[in-house]
Amino acid sequence: MNATKVVAFGGGHGLSASLRALRHCAPQLDLDITAVVTVGDDGGSSGRLRAERDALPPGDLRQALVALAGDHPAIRRSAELFQHRFADRGARRGVPAGPAASDGPAERTAGGPPGRAVAAGAAGDPLAGHAVGNLVLLGLMEQLGDPIAALDHAAAMLGAVGRVLPMTCRPVEIEARVRGADPARPDEVDTVRGQHAVAVTPGRVESLHLTPADPRACAEAVIAVAEADWLIFGPGSWYTSVIPHLLVPDLAAAIVSSPARRLVTLNLAAEKETLGLSVADHLVALGGYLPELKVDLVLADGKAVGDPEPVERAAESLGARLLLAPVAVPDGSPRHDPVALGAALVPVLGADR
Amino acid sequence: MNATKVVAFGGGHGLSASLRALRHCAPQLDLDITAVVTVGDDGGSSGRLRAERDALPPGDLRQALVALAGDHPAIRRSAELFQHRFADRGARRGVPAGPAASDGPAERTAGGPPGRAVAAGAAGDPLAGHAVGNLVLLGLMEQLGDPIAALDHAAAMLGAVGRVLPMTCRPVEIEARVRGADPARPDEVDTVRGQHAVAVTPGRVESLHLTPADPRACAEAVIAVAEADWLIFGPGSWYTSVIPHLLVPDLAAAIVSSPARRLVTLNLAAEKETLGLSVADHLVALGGYLPELKVDLVLADGKAVGDPEPVERAAESLGARLLLAPVAVPDGSPRHDPVALGAALVPVLGADR
Repeated sequence: MNATKVVAFGGGHGLSASLRALRHCAPQLDLDITAVVTVGDDGGSSGRLRAERDALPPGDLRQALVALAGDHPAIRRSAELFQHRFADRGARRGVPAGPAASDGPAERTAGGPPGRAVAAGAAGDPLAGHAVGNLVLLGLMEQLGDPIAALDHAAAMLGAVGRVLPMTCRPVEIEARVRGADPARPDEVDTVRGQHAVAVTPGRVESLHLTPADPRACAEAVIAVAEADWLIFGPGSWYTSVIPHLLVPDLAAAIVSSPARRLVTLNLAAEKETLGLSVADHLVALGGYLPELKVDLVLADGKAVGDPEPVERAAESLGARLLLAPVAVPDGSPRHDPVALGAALVPVLGADR
Repeated sequence: MNATKVVAFGGGHGLSASLRALRHCAPQLDLDITAVVTVGDDGGSSGRLRAERDALPPGDLRQALVALAGDHPAIRRSAELFQHRFADRGARRGVPAGPAASDGPAERTAGGPPGRAVAAGAAGDPLAGHAVGNLVLLGLMEQLGDPIAALDHAAAMLGAVGRVLPMTCRPVEIEARVRGADPARPDEVDTVRGQHAVAVTPGRVESLHLTPADPRACAEAVIAVAEADWLIFGPGSWYTSVIPHLLVPDLAAAIVSSPARRLVTLNLAAEKETLGLSVADHLVALGGYLPELKVDLVLADGKAVGDPEPVERAAESLGARLLLAPVAVPDGSPRHDPVALGAALVPVLGADR
């Protein structure tokens, strides 16, 4: 029997949760996993490398690789090395510095202001805040002159059980029209530029754009989508990690025309960038950016959904049925538990077409 | 039959040549190779990391690891990644910048002035000049809090056919009393501080010291020496790569008391730091820094030696016989050819005790 080909879209911690969940399906299902990662990050270490070296921001790519890393103890150590952040030289050795060191759910938004500002602030310690894996990916991309070859080699270094691809081979800028971006003028609509700024805006995102407006999709990602059995969107920062994929013309076309079934995994709570959006609104937003998008299944946590009726209706408007399952971590924080999410995915991905 | 345990001392390109030669013996001999590396580097990327992050200078350790890296194509690519230097952001992507990018024989002396000066000069591009492997080693040392565990993990990443150890677990400073360090005062003796400064001094080194004066040897290196069948000194920068090992008290004691046989591989030409020293003088210098040192064999290239008589006498004064063999690269430059050096070592290391 051929492996079931799964393409997971996202960026940052949401994609990591999705990939870790897929790994938990592996003992029961023969999965061929491809992650397609947003490349709009302009904050923290990635933002600095992007600004200083014109590089594809490596942070979200690194997180996806680490989520797919193998289980051998030496491989786990290499994965930890990829995640290791250089502390500020003033700090004690081995102790990461401040919020930039977090690999938890808040990393992307807590990862510091955009690159240029951080670069200036960190001038005293050139390496502070950089994850080793970001520098390895940067080195590989420079060495090989090809981000795909670089990611494939990094995947081999980590014994990854799947492939990690960028949605585009050149970085993109995410910008949004935001109502109330300036809390002093709550009714005004302003343009907010940069993934980090959009992710932390106190206003309401009214529309999302990429710069350049029609970036070229990564060809390997387009092929993976065309050959997939399942496409999985989310969880993750809706505007800055999930929807950007739908704004890359060739990728959007491939998503629409792929014979694959499509699954949307909803978030467990609104984030800063989606404050005010209901669970159903998240689904509506997807259709708003790619009207041709048809979805087969929407997976959500019953507790997070509350009254399922509006979510069911929003799912139906995309052609999908709603599947409720307990997929949150037990401690009550709004994070997906990879084991629980994997358990919910097994019967879905394992079902015959 | 047990493997023949070989410990090779040095640093930089000379040690690399020695290690690559030992690898060429592997098909015929069962060798267990340990490299013991000087940690006095204060130039280039290593010097900056040392100055900025209080790190063991990683460059010579990286070179030794790469020399021992396995042959699998994926491993070769990882080894190339370790050697990849970040170009200045002004430079074209993938094209290393200037002499700092060289991995050839001149790297250590051409690697730029000491750390502090380079760090200041490179403030505009924080990564420029750093080899990726230096950053990986630095990250591993911070992550694991133990340079030996870090080196062992890096060796595993590169499928290394041997072990790389530092001579001490803390960096040392190399300093020399040099006559004519200032060409305007050719008869004056000055103290020249730092490996880079000693390596490029135009004067004549009269004595060499480490700071601290009696650094603690790396325990694993002492054990490797005690258990070795062969100890190999050189080739390499005599004052800044070979002799420093003899100035670490516990390492020197282990070298003297080890039951191993001892081989000195002589350089093919004097370097800047040893200008004015004859081939025989190089041997005399070893005995000068460690009078108890007994040597079994001195390996040299006949062409480089010229009249063998004074070298034979200097070898005899250490208890050694002189073995002449063609070990230089064919193009006439004063570099050891690993294949030729390996061919010369096979009958030596393969001989019964």
